[in-house]
Amino acid sequence: MPTLSEVAQLAGVTAATVSNVLRHRGRVGAETRQRVLDAVKTLGYRPHLAARALAEGRAPTIALMVSSIDNPFYPEFALAVERAARESGHFVIVCNTNEDPATGRAYLDQIAGTLSEGVLVTNANLDFADLHKTEARGAPVVLCMWERPQEPPGLHCVAVDFRRAGELAGAHLVELGHRRIGAIVGSKVSGIHAARYAGFVDALHAAGLDAPAARLRQAPDSVQGGYAAARELLEADPGITAIFASNDLPALGALHAAADLGREVPRDLSVTGITDIKPAREARPALTTVAVRTAEAAELAVGLLRDLLAAAPDYEGAARTAPRVLVVPEPRLVVRGSTGVAPMRE
Amino acid sequence: MPTLSEVAQLAGVTAATVSNVLRHRGRVGAETRQRVLDAVKTLGYRPHLAARALAEGRAPTIALMVSSIDNPFYPEFALAVERAARESGHFVIVCNTNEDPATGRAYLDQIAGTLSEGVLVTNANLDFADLHKTEARGAPVVLCMWERPQEPPGLHCVAVDFRRAGELAGAHLVELGHRRIGAIVGSKVSGIHAARYAGFVDALHAAGLDAPAARLRQAPDSVQGGYAAARELLEADPGITAIFASNDLPALGALHAAADLGREVPRDLSVTGITDIKPAREARPALTTVAVRTAEAAELAVGLLRDLLAAAPDYEGAARTAPRVLVVPEPRLVVRGSTGVAPMRE
Repeated sequence: MPTLSEVAQLAGVTAATVSNVLRHRGRVGAETRQRVLDAVKTLGYRPHLAARALAEGRAPTIALMVSSIDNPFYPEFALAVERAARESGHFVIVCNTNEDPATGRAYLDQIAGTLSEGVLVTNANLDFADLHKTEARGAPVVLCMWERPQEPPGLHCVAVDFRRAGELAGAHLVELGHRRIGAIVGSKVSGIHAARYAGFVDALHAAGLDAPAARLRQAPDSVQGGYAAARELLEADPGITAIFASNDLPALGALHAAADLGREVPRDLSVTGITDIKPAREARPALTTVAVRTAEAAELAVGLLRDLLAAAPDYEGAARTAPRVLVVPEPRLVVRGSTGVAPMRE
Repeated sequence: MPTLSEVAQLAGVTAATVSNVLRHRGRVGAETRQRVLDAVKTLGYRPHLAARALAEGRAPTIALMVSSIDNPFYPEFALAVERAARESGHFVIVCNTNEDPATGRAYLDQIAGTLSEGVLVTNANLDFADLHKTEARGAPVVLCMWERPQEPPGLHCVAVDFRRAGELAGAHLVELGHRRIGAIVGSKVSGIHAARYAGFVDALHAAGLDAPAARLRQAPDSVQGGYAAARELLEADPGITAIFASNDLPALGALHAAADLGREVPRDLSVTGITDIKPAREARPALTTVAVRTAEAAELAVGLLRDLLAAAPDYEGAARTAPRVLVVPEPRLVVRGSTGVAPMRE
């Protein structure tokens, strides 16, 4: 692979002049310019794209940090991000942190501001201190899918009103006549899904119902986690006629638990999720859930990152911008086969 | 962010000297060296990691090109690749081509050999010419999950005996007494899944059965695709007692079609897939499939890429190595709830 220096030598100019010609910068006479272009052609020199992007303080990629590529939400979100990014010619590289802050930190150190121009962070379990450091190095950071629009994180973010999502699911179950509703929270109860559960409780309270701790289970955010939690709930209290899950994966697990316990969905048991991932649409019965508008969130996040990059042509201004919070359009209930009118109880 | 030039200026040396000190190269006197290190410390200079890696002809990342991040196989494979790569300190960036050769080409141009040291390519629909060009630029390329070990692609590859996988699925159905077996091929019949179907036909022939075209459907490699194809097969020939699908996603669709047609699995209909993705394990009934040892394939692929990188310290030798073909340990049948003894026919 010929080097810039070889091109310079052949053209009888300095490397800086070659660079100026290739980058359409500086003053270079027409004749010199032609000599450089001829040398480029003769040697088959291919400008080292990344090096050039780096020299210009710009790389054509943005990084998307995901916390668990194994969770189907993240590939779906990555796809949506990629669609949005390609509109402005950006490439997306996906970095999976496996829910490990140390891995996340390593990716940020290796990639942010160097291999990638900016960083989108989904609900990756990253230390905010690391994200602030990344910003301070000049790489804008946008948190995607922030769960509490009313409590901004002090970083640029795209927020989804997940409390409202929980409320919509809860209200739907209440309207169908359910009174004994179990809840599965796919994080620590005070954790990332807290707002979803709070919204669900809002809906119960609005209907004059209570939400006793006995009908609440915390579970891993997975099909298996939801399966185990739903079994526990239904075995402890067979009078439960509906299950609210704070995410689609545990809701899908609840469908399996119902099947194994011989309870037909939705005749004997209704189940709701939140997010609307593809497996929710493909389940049998398909899952009633609250769609959080993943594609819109991705578009807003990419747009915000693009704005921050444009506002920081010196590559170091982003951190100085006051954190911006964009809120995704309100979640909406998607009613499918997994919910129905509460069964009559004798 | 301070630059190398600023460090050089403060230390009263050339940028090249600063670079030599930071890279532990060239001859630099102890006093000069200390001046440079002091200047680095004073200014808080942070060597531009990617630039340094590029200058040294090495980047700490490998790229994984996937054809469709929306297909759950690819995130699972990405996770396995990442686990293997992290053992040698490599980072993995995932690039999604969306089954579009032009997108793949753009990623290769942007990333291979510049942002990433080497490239792993899954069944991405990439032109081999583009991959050869990438190799010629000095970035080793390893094809993962090549489907036909007996017909190497002229590129380094990790191959899975998918014909054997198809044969194992077919033999399993035959042993259960099935005689009228429908087949769903999740690619063009002559396409990427051809070897799988050929193995299935091998198994039928070995049992003295034929594989008429009337019991074969080509379908998109998705749940929906499998659903539609299975309905067609079962409506056209209600005597079919089993369905062989060349991939897990269409097999899952066949389970749904059976449910909608009122055929109980496995009492009335058996269904097999190939791969053993997570949704196969999570389906109800869980899917009988042929596991292609995704984790082992990922480990072999990363190991091969690592060998190629080690053998090409000048970053341009890789293309000169004769293509190597590593074969993944034989696929194995995983029997679950979706297959059973063929129903008695009157």
